[in-house]
Amino acid sequence: MWLHRRFKHCPGCGAPVEYRVPADDNRERATCTACGTVHYENPINVVGTLPIWGEQVLLCRRAIEPRHGFWTLPAGFLELGESAAEGAARETDEEAGAQIELQELYCLLNVVRVGQVHLFYRARLLSMDFNPGPESLEVRLFHEHEIPWDELAFRTVRETLQRFFEDRRLGRPFALHSADIA
Amino acid sequence: MWLHRRFKHCPGCGAPVEYRVPADDNRERATCTACGTVHYENPINVVGTLPIWGEQVLLCRRAIEPRHGFWTLPAGFLELGESAAEGAARETDEEAGAQIELQELYCLLNVVRVGQVHLFYRARLLSMDFNPGPESLEVRLFHEHEIPWDELAFRTVRETLQRFFEDRRLGRPFALHSADIA
Repeated sequence: MWLHRRFKHCPGCGAPVEYRVPADDNRERATCTACGTVHYENPINVVGTLPIWGEQVLLCRRAIEPRHGFWTLPAGFLELGESAAEGAARETDEEAGAQIELQELYCLLNVVRVGQVHLFYRARLLSMDFNPGPESLEVRLFHEHEIPWDELAFRTVRETLQRFFEDRRLGRPFALHSADIA
Repeated sequence: MWLHRRFKHCPGCGAPVEYRVPADDNRERATCTACGTVHYENPINVVGTLPIWGEQVLLCRRAIEPRHGFWTLPAGFLELGESAAEGAARETDEEAGAQIELQELYCLLNVVRVGQVHLFYRARLLSMDFNPGPESLEVRLFHEHEIPWDELAFRTVRETLQRFFEDRRLGRPFALHSADIA
């Protein structure tokens, strides 16, 4: 996995690290050859929302790489100092400038290949006033038949939208979906 | 927050880092003064289970710090290369040696102060054969009235147990609980 072994030097003292299994552990970890500090590498969270206005959902067209020009739900990396829900709301503000009422967690999607856990919350849009941030070229609402399925930025966005429209079509209550993205 | 500014040197090249706001960002990041690489620090996931056997739940008494000797649900840091559910099942095997059938995500608990998101899954115990791993002094089942509330290792464990017994007392279906731990 390309995510492993990112460390070549100790972030504490700058000396070279070696990957070895600490005495009380069962995995190789970046271990400083000078100060002995063990540095762990773990998956991180991407948090975002599925903003809903009546029959429509909000998507943003990306102004940044990766996937410049493709459509996404507002989402980004969870930051230190915030909860998952706060992060999802912040990303919705930053990327779409949308006013929302955050609802329940809707999708937990593991993207093991890249060491990410994506958490999408349902959100009720409170107005149609959007304000695309610097990371978005455009923000608009889509009916189901308008969704640009071939121009979606990420598999987790496709998965979340598919499950939402299916739940709605079948009249199912919105409960949490958990899935792995290969 | 004590978690910020952990980097003093670049994990890539070993040169000193400075915390500054990159051009396309709004937060200070560890930026290498030599190679320019920006290093991000993000919250990480703790994953675990609430193993259930009839009216009883399984707890482990910790053989390691922090909270040596206190009782916990089996849980630990999510590792690269596994999904949240796989990590929760692995921790249950490592710490309790318990055979389980993993069920739905039950609690998402933000511990913002330490940059962690805790994810607890309900799990159905398949047998009463346990095998405490090196991180556990003891593994046993508890009825609600036996829970050692004053000897629980972590607030997230207390929160998960409280919600479980309350849901069960009220006959509520088990749905996801989200909460912030101050």
